[in-house]
Amino acid sequence: MTASQPTFDYEARTRACQEALADRAIECVVLSPGPNMTYLSGFVDEPMERHLLLFVPQSGEPIFLAPTMYDEQLQADSWVSRRRLWDDGDDPTDALAEIVADLDLAGGRVLVDDRMWALFTQDLRDAMPDATFGLASEVLTELRLTKSEAELEVMARAATVADDVSVEIRELGSSAVGMTEAELAREIETRLADHGGDGPSFETIVGAGPNGAKPHHRHGDRAIRAGDPVVLDFGTRVDGYPSDQTRTVVFGEDDSTATGDSTGPETVPDEFSRVFETVREAQETAVAAVEPGIPAEAVDRAARDVIEAAGYGEQFVHRTGHGVGLEVHEPPYIVAGNERTLEPGMVFSIEPGIYVQDSFGVRIEDLVVVTEDGCRRLNDSPHGYTVR
Amino acid sequence: MTASQPTFDYEARTRACQEALADRAIECVVLSPGPNMTYLSGFVDEPMERHLLLFVPQSGEPIFLAPTMYDEQLQADSWVSRRRLWDDGDDPTDALAEIVADLDLAGGRVLVDDRMWALFTQDLRDAMPDATFGLASEVLTELRLTKSEAELEVMARAATVADDVSVEIRELGSSAVGMTEAELAREIETRLADHGGDGPSFETIVGAGPNGAKPHHRHGDRAIRAGDPVVLDFGTRVDGYPSDQTRTVVFGEDDSTATGDSTGPETVPDEFSRVFETVREAQETAVAAVEPGIPAEAVDRAARDVIEAAGYGEQFVHRTGHGVGLEVHEPPYIVAGNERTLEPGMVFSIEPGIYVQDSFGVRIEDLVVVTEDGCRRLNDSPHGYTVR
Repeated sequence: MTASQPTFDYEARTRACQEALADRAIECVVLSPGPNMTYLSGFVDEPMERHLLLFVPQSGEPIFLAPTMYDEQLQADSWVSRRRLWDDGDDPTDALAEIVADLDLAGGRVLVDDRMWALFTQDLRDAMPDATFGLASEVLTELRLTKSEAELEVMARAATVADDVSVEIRELGSSAVGMTEAELAREIETRLADHGGDGPSFETIVGAGPNGAKPHHRHGDRAIRAGDPVVLDFGTRVDGYPSDQTRTVVFGEDDSTATGDSTGPETVPDEFSRVFETVREAQETAVAAVEPGIPAEAVDRAARDVIEAAGYGEQFVHRTGHGVGLEVHEPPYIVAGNERTLEPGMVFSIEPGIYVQDSFGVRIEDLVVVTEDGCRRLNDSPHGYTVR
Repeated sequence: MTASQPTFDYEARTRACQEALADRAIECVVLSPGPNMTYLSGFVDEPMERHLLLFVPQSGEPIFLAPTMYDEQLQADSWVSRRRLWDDGDDPTDALAEIVADLDLAGGRVLVDDRMWALFTQDLRDAMPDATFGLASEVLTELRLTKSEAELEVMARAATVADDVSVEIRELGSSAVGMTEAELAREIETRLADHGGDGPSFETIVGAGPNGAKPHHRHGDRAIRAGDPVVLDFGTRVDGYPSDQTRTVVFGEDDSTATGDSTGPETVPDEFSRVFETVREAQETAVAAVEPGIPAEAVDRAARDVIEAAGYGEQFVHRTGHGVGLEVHEPPYIVAGNERTLEPGMVFSIEPGIYVQDSFGVRIEDLVVVTEDGCRRLNDSPHGYTVR
């Protein structure tokens, strides 16, 4: 994402945000480095311990409060041209007080980034003792919820990178047996980069055998065995937008009974095939259920019904999915209780799973985009567990 | 870091925290996933949008508020055995209200993690309308400021990994000319992992030529040229603790004048050698200045004096250093205005730099640990810019 080839119209997004602030009589929204700031300004950075905040008032021009050392990058990366800089050694709350005075923010309603650290919200509260505070998601969530064509295009590219790597990893076949989870994770991440992805979009999950039963296990020292169901959950970024997909595969089975190995033949756990087919059916059923106008929770219900009917309801311990945009996890959440109506342009994951404690897990995940009459998948790599 | 081989005594750290709370008449500290939570509980995770909080009351047992799907990992990774779990689909603020009642927290003074998202501090404020809020750093900073022998040992190992990779990258010599910054960054990160590092401790910086003049440029598509000063700033983690070192190198110069290339011979910029030697002297001088009993800002002053005397004061746009521990940037900050007295066991970076806009930058950084009578470097790879 470079300033010379802007993919997204950040200024238009900011003006839409200002309209939403005016509609709700909100004075200002204050953002910290992260997805909301990127969405409106184009500037990309991690949260940091220095005061770097973007103030978007109801009207007029937004302004950055920023360390001087970020001046050049802000100029290069953002259309927002007003900057109040402070130097290491200055007290940044002095600069903050000036902005508050400039924007006349002493009172009224102010929204702060949902991810703003307490370190900074505390300073904002001190600087605006008469203001009332809310969360930026109150206006930003709606703006970010449906994706533009430009966003869908880069998300499709990110999904394709993950799909291509998924196929390649599957093709490792039995040569993956003996690799540790961590080694396979590195292999995945190297290939994501080779295909043009910009870093993992979250810590790559490789959960072999019993580790697959921990839904958020990342990867460890366990060597992958023949017969291990292996949960592979990974993604990468393209132009700032992530992919996120999960496949569960078995890299090989050893059917010989004459290995002299006292552990005997290494085949998949007894229950595996039934669990796998249940998850596959739940995932297909949930994808088929998606259409504009239904509540998000109905998609969760569709997956859960299949899994409960098969007797595994207690072992499907998480929601069916989450929205994906600049964040890997963002609204709409596909979860019981979320009555938000689905609309064309929303993108989310559908990822039911069943976790058999101390034995194995199965999860299958695709990203889908809601269309006028249903949805389309951003992923198209095979779902099956066999590598042949 | 595994539960079966604990490197650190998390429970002892928590008891020390509780003593500090009692001393200050603070009811409770509430932490979110991140370094403070890891420091006290051993549980490692990224900030997340689900409510996962650790309550450490002034006395009695700490308790996790956590999504059910994290139950097994919390059991495996943390000595904290009390958990109030909530399922996707439940309202986590109900569970939060129960903990507040259990711990009798309605009023009094409560500290929240400096990095806690506004999303969660808002819920805590709603759940405890009569409490007054402060920041966890009020007690955690002092606890984390001086490192134990176990911490120093893993930090030394992390520094050695970075040193070893630094030497290897230097040995690429002129074969690095033509690589893009991003390619060299990947090369660095691959080698960090090969040497046993657990991921980059921050986004690897490779700033060639003019990109080196942007202190927090990461890496881009620029191909490294002969004669480019290249700022290499990277680190990795060992047992959760990071390294962080910077070297500025020139991978090769082309002295021939008969290349037929209209850009002519590619040698270092005119001013480079003087700038480099100034930074090197500033860094050495600052390291030599470190001893227990002096204020942190004195170390900044020592580096700045050298650079100002050489006429580059305006181009040294950042503080001289930052503490390093579970966080890559943490107290003590080596910056004007920080009067905190240095004590044995503190670890921080010393990293003066000079940035010549549109031309190049030079930064040299080592980590040091304060000793009884001075300091010792955790890094020992060469500082020079030549690769031969």
